[in-house]
This record gives sequence, structure tokens and C-alpha cells, in this order.
Amino acid sequence: MNFLEERIVKDGIVKEGNVLKVDSFLNHQMDIRLFDQIGEEFKKRFEGTPINKILTIEASGIGIACVAARQFDVPVIFAKKSKSINIEGEVYVAEVESFTHKCKNQVIVSKKFLNPDDNVLIIDDFLANGCALQGLISIVTSAGANVAGIGIVIEKGFQTGGQIIRNLGYHLESLAIVDGMDTATGKIVFREQ
Amino acid sequence: MNFLEERIVKDGIVKEGNVLKVDSFLNHQMDIRLFDQIGEEFKKRFEGTPINKILTIEASGIGIACVAARQFDVPVIFAKKSKSINIEGEVYVAEVESFTHKCKNQVIVSKKFLNPDDNVLIIDDFLANGCALQGLISIVTSAGANVAGIGIVIEKGFQTGGQIIRNLGYHLESLAIVDGMDTATGKIVFREQ
Repeated sequence: MNFLEERIVKDGIVKEGNVLKVDSFLNHQMDIRLFDQIGEEFKKRFEGTPINKILTIEASGIGIACVAARQFDVPVIFAKKSKSINIEGEVYVAEVESFTHKCKNQVIVSKKFLNPDDNVLIIDDFLANGCALQGLISIVTSAGANVAGIGIVIEKGFQTGGQIIRNLGYHLESLAIVDGMDTATGKIVFREQ
Repeated sequence: MNFLEERIVKDGIVKEGNVLKVDSFLNHQMDIRLFDQIGEEFKKRFEGTPINKILTIEASGIGIACVAARQFDVPVIFAKKSKSINIEGEVYVAEVESFTHKCKNQVIVSKKFLNPDDNVLIIDDFLANGCALQGLISIVTSAGANVAGIGIVIEKGFQTGGQIIRNLGYHLESLAIVDGMDTATGKIVFREQ
């Protein structure tokens, strides 16, 4: 087990409905020392890949992306959730469905922050059905920029998101891939990497 | 002018309605080197103050808080926006009105992450009317914890938020206080600190 899998086993809580609660260290209370380790690991996994920007999505991706960005010495852009129907012309828009909140959101990124010569690393905390990630990829593509890589902290390997993204040929690195969870025992099975 | 005021003059844009757009380096695209400097400056300004947790609010406070937290070696908690009416009993709730979005949100923090022996530094990107900040203070107080300090990146000194908080006796540090902006010329006047 790597440092992250160990932490998930120690502090993650398996809940009904394939929910893995990691809110004590990842997406509500945030362990910044752990985020530093996550950043170092992303840096290692994307060694040699040209990256000049990191893109994430509000809210729980932001902290991880910002701490990881220190390793790459690049700026971070976060896609903003927007309910407004009158979107100005100067933004890229994607529709994103939330697994947790069972609702659809438009997310937007200002056109001025993504350009055709950008090599973008997408970072997010979770990958399950992949809807948020597909939205981020579509935004990068709309800008004519390159998806240099995708760094995910926890992938739910028993949902289809990760496989679809890999099938599409993207360089996806998930620091922990959960292949199964047992609500009764709390046991978590990780994929060998 | 300090490093932040210089950056605001260089890249900030003054818009109609007392709007200061800093989305190229602070709250949409984020300059992580600048965030490191912001973190160091907060560390300096709260030197000697016991702080064991940082509290912020989604979305644009998170990146700043997480990078600043490295200086303090403490975890960050972010208050989550929640539309749900059925709030479980295990969260602290505050009502927050957004200046930018002209809407009310409930923000919540899990009770398990704030305790009476906590010394909390509140961090946010902007302070204008102070509504978000008042909500965060009320959450810390509900937990019986101590507001050890408040660190703001940009305060709009011509709105009442900052003065109310200082009148209440809180140790508030704003790295840049904007006392006036001129839409026609783009000129920004900072308060001497």
C-alpha cells in the first residue's frame, strides 16, 4: 500500500451506496502535509511531461491542485460552478452532473486563461462516473489546448469513469484505485498498480 | 506598496459598481508563487499567536488557505455551501449572503472538525460587507472555539465589514486595504498600514 492507501484505510469510512467518506483529511478538513505528498507523487508520475497550467474544479479539487502546483511551479485555474443562464461569450462552458449532490451544474472557465499552446494537467480529488472530468477535458479541448495528463487522488475503479478516460488514450494517474468496498466490514480493496 | 498591492495595481481591473477584478491571479486563475508570499506574510503577521486550524469558505478561499497552511503546519477546513434544507444535526450552520452573486447560501462545517480547544485562523480572499466572515466567526463561536485571528487578502476599506470586525475586537489582518477605486482612470487607493 502507498501512503495514500494507508491513509484511506486508517481514516476513510465506507458508507451505504458505495460512498467513501474521506472528509477528515481530503475534502472538508484537509491535511496539508498529505497534500504535499500527493503533489510530490503527481510530480513523479508526470515527470518529463511538459505542463504549464493546472486545471481543477471547485470546490474540493482546489486545495489539492494549489498545493500540487508548487511542485510544477505553474498557475492553477479552477472551473467555477455557475447557475446563471446568461453566460457571457468570454467563457468556456461544460455541463457537469454531481454524483454526491445529484444535480447538474454548468462549469465555466474564462477564455483568457486557456490558450492553444497550453499543456494542461487536470487535477481532481475523485473520479467515479467521470462526468466532472469529461467536462474539464471538453473545456481544455474547446480552447484548442492539450490535455497533458490527468491526476486523480481517489478513483472508484468499480465505476466506469477511469476506463473510459483510459480508452480515450489520456494519461490518467490515480494515486489510489478502489476496486471494492464492503459496507458491513468497512474493508476496502485497492487495485495493484 | 507591498508585493500584493503592486500586483493588484499591475493586474487588477477596476469595474463599474466597485468591483475589483483580480481573477487573473487570485480567484479564478491562481498564482501559486504569490500564494506562497501571502502565506509567509500571514505567518509574519500572526507570529506568536497559537493557531492549530485554519478555516475558510468555498470556493476562492480554499487555495489561499491551503498554501498558507503550509507555513503554520495545520489542517484547513472549508465551510461548504449547502442548498439542502434537511441539514443533519452534526453540522454547524451559518447563513451567508454573496456580494458577487446576490444570493443567500447556507454554509456548513462538520461538528467533528471544530472543538472548544481549537485556536482558529480564518482566511478568505475578500472582505467587503463582511457577511461571509461573520458566518465563519459564528461557526467558530458555535463550536466554543477561539477565533485566534482573521487573515484577509484584499479588504474593501470603503465598505463596513472590516471596521465592524475590528470594533468587535478581533485581530484582523488585511494584506491590502483598498480605500477607493476610480472606474474612469482605473486608479486604486490603498490604505497606509
